[in-house]
Amino acid sequence: MMRTRPLKVALLGCGVVGSEVTRIMTTHADDLAARIGAPVELAGIAVRRPDKVREGVPAELITTDATALVKRGDIDVVIEVIGGIEPARKLITTAFEHGASVVSANKALVAADGAALHAAAEEHGADLYYEAAVAGAIPLVRPLRESLAGDKVNRVLGIVNGTTNFILDKMDTSGAGYSEALDEATALGYAEADPTADVEGFDAAAKAAILAGIAFHTRVTIDDVHREGITEVTAADIASAKRMGCTVKLLAICERAAHGESVTARVHPAMIPLTHPLASVREAYNAVFVESDAAGQLMFYGPGAGGSPTASAVLGDLVAVCRNKLSEATGPGESAYTQLPVSPMGEVVTRYHISLDVADKPGVLAQVAMVFAEHGVSIDTVRQQGKDGEASLVVVTHRAADAALSSTVEALRKLDTVRGVASIMRVEGE
Amino acid sequence: MMRTRPLKVALLGCGVVGSEVTRIMTTHADDLAARIGAPVELAGIAVRRPDKVREGVPAELITTDATALVKRGDIDVVIEVIGGIEPARKLITTAFEHGASVVSANKALVAADGAALHAAAEEHGADLYYEAAVAGAIPLVRPLRESLAGDKVNRVLGIVNGTTNFILDKMDTSGAGYSEALDEATALGYAEADPTADVEGFDAAAKAAILAGIAFHTRVTIDDVHREGITEVTAADIASAKRMGCTVKLLAICERAAHGESVTARVHPAMIPLTHPLASVREAYNAVFVESDAAGQLMFYGPGAGGSPTASAVLGDLVAVCRNKLSEATGPGESAYTQLPVSPMGEVVTRYHISLDVADKPGVLAQVAMVFAEHGVSIDTVRQQGKDGEASLVVVTHRAADAALSSTVEALRKLDTVRGVASIMRVEGE
Repeated sequence: MMRTRPLKVALLGCGVVGSEVTRIMTTHADDLAARIGAPVELAGIAVRRPDKVREGVPAELITTDATALVKRGDIDVVIEVIGGIEPARKLITTAFEHGASVVSANKALVAADGAALHAAAEEHGADLYYEAAVAGAIPLVRPLRESLAGDKVNRVLGIVNGTTNFILDKMDTSGAGYSEALDEATALGYAEADPTADVEGFDAAAKAAILAGIAFHTRVTIDDVHREGITEVTAADIASAKRMGCTVKLLAICERAAHGESVTARVHPAMIPLTHPLASVREAYNAVFVESDAAGQLMFYGPGAGGSPTASAVLGDLVAVCRNKLSEATGPGESAYTQLPVSPMGEVVTRYHISLDVADKPGVLAQVAMVFAEHGVSIDTVRQQGKDGEASLVVVTHRAADAALSSTVEALRKLDTVRGVASIMRVEGE
Repeated sequence: MMRTRPLKVALLGCGVVGSEVTRIMTTHADDLAARIGAPVELAGIAVRRPDKVREGVPAELITTDATALVKRGDIDVVIEVIGGIEPARKLITTAFEHGASVVSANKALVAADGAALHAAAEEHGADLYYEAAVAGAIPLVRPLRESLAGDKVNRVLGIVNGTTNFILDKMDTSGAGYSEALDEATALGYAEADPTADVEGFDAAAKAAILAGIAFHTRVTIDDVHREGITEVTAADIASAKRMGCTVKLLAICERAAHGESVTARVHPAMIPLTHPLASVREAYNAVFVESDAAGQLMFYGPGAGGSPTASAVLGDLVAVCRNKLSEATGPGESAYTQLPVSPMGEVVTRYHISLDVADKPGVLAQVAMVFAEHGVSIDTVRQQGKDGEASLVVVTHRAADAALSSTVEALRKLDTVRGVASIMRVEGE
């Protein structure tokens, strides 16, 4: 059964993920060959710094000329783990032009330009797989794209960024403030020197775009995703969440609108009840809920990042793409036939938890309640608390359009009796 | 892009799952066509009782001659949801012989005879998919077979039978005995009139065989799976588990032996710590942990049975098989290249929780401890408790081979001072 000419693989990037891919391809070559039906060999590894010591990486495979590598013409599959938009995009499209299929872990690129990449793959009869781009080793792209292909997904709700989950978990368990928790995450290697992509929610937003596109069979780019990071989350917010029996998580939420004629995608910190399974997702783990018509509620949980888990996802894709190559077929491409538009954040229906610093005098609550009523926002609970002549009001709303909620907050800010809006956070998962 | 000649599907069985498959194929025909790349139509539905009222099922498609249906020659895909060994096996092999691929939800058949079915599929260039056979809607077969194809799975541990989980959960939360909890499960439709397949662990053992075979790339049949049901689990066992900070679950456990030269597969009730994520899997839900070298620990959670969830899995497979048909390719077949043998239960390394009724006199503990020592079983904790002249000893062991543990218990039974062995249960998930 097994053919003897090996499938040739070019690896672009040899950092944490790439070196782990190299290690497994070397040490588990027999397993990969048996599962693919043909041997598979690394034909070249493109790096920026050729002199860096890379244990277990064959020196003779190293090159700095990534373009020449993908243009060789004998490469069956290109694995792209360099990340970022360029030169990754150019290298991937060049790979397609030269007959290779591509396995990528590049969430930023797929979220920014997935449609064009898929079109290029299809034009050249090649595959584009990217399980590793979303939630590391957790199988999500394949289950959504294939296992649920006969179902109708209505909602994807999850923790898809390990760094921010580590920071929020630390704040929750130790009472630390944001900066202190970030410092600890950095010291332990959970946060990068420049943590912007993680803490500002760009990484999660890219994943939300990819998940929403696949789940709803439409095009969603990172620009369509409403994004708020965790840098404004305070120890007081966490404490306030605790009093409500909640914790704070950075959530990626992709939803079909109530009447199904549009979708929404957003990333923001939110309070979720401690009884919700996502509340117990600790440290840098990821977990994603998928709700569909027939399957009901599914959850996928696991390590969301790291060299080995990401390599596991890359190599699963490699096996699939190699099998497709051998049978001269391609796997599922882009599925965007529903062409559902992405609605703006203002149309999202959610709940707010709002802390107000107010004057401690009679009639304040009535005045505040009137503002909510005027904007059509119904109040679920109010907690009033006096402190040294001032007072605070904590309001939790019923579900309402985000636009109505935010204009309510704007109006509250203008009240003389409202000294300040101490915090606003959405409440999800109920 | 879309071809106009529809793919033709024959449905064998139109019970809870089959009628839901019919409903979704009818109401979501456009979505399925878009995702497959060609329209797909139900060409016939084979049932035993043609006169039964089936709402929404086109009467003109109903036939009682399943054999003639799969022999028609124009059928692209046969969906088999009748269950059991015969006539399902004969119908599936006949389908392959007549050029059809098969999607099956039949765990009993795949676990008994998967190798022969896969061989028949391969011989005729057909696909055999059965995501629905394991844990209903939860994607498990595809993630194991494809997403983790580049990884090395070491362990699969899970709750894969909803009926028994419902019963054990009921016993745990209400303090009810087994019979009472079974009655409630039956009344609520969670248990069948004859609950044997569920409560004796046959259903879970079939799933364990399928999971072990896929996870370890070897052949495992239901006969290789050590099986104990939950009929002997008592309210006292559950109470005893609670005192240890545990709960009792029926687990399916597939493991690679320590040195990797064999595998084991077993189904039995076990105590697991309340802190373990499987402990919080309630009612009829299923959840499965997969541990692998590179990915680490993944968990998959969702509804493990029911018409809609099972139909979701069937239709996901249908889309994949139809896509393969269109590209004249086949998906992954059987992967049994490792040829790892299945070791007997005696070689499984586990822990025991043993309750003994003993004489209330000095030296009993020493005598009991000596028996453990003689069999090379190390004791973790002992709890001694006196009651009306008699006493009980609760012993929890360290990890040891199951054979050593069971011969320890045999020897304990022979001690004069041991009046009886009240219960034995394995402890897992630590």
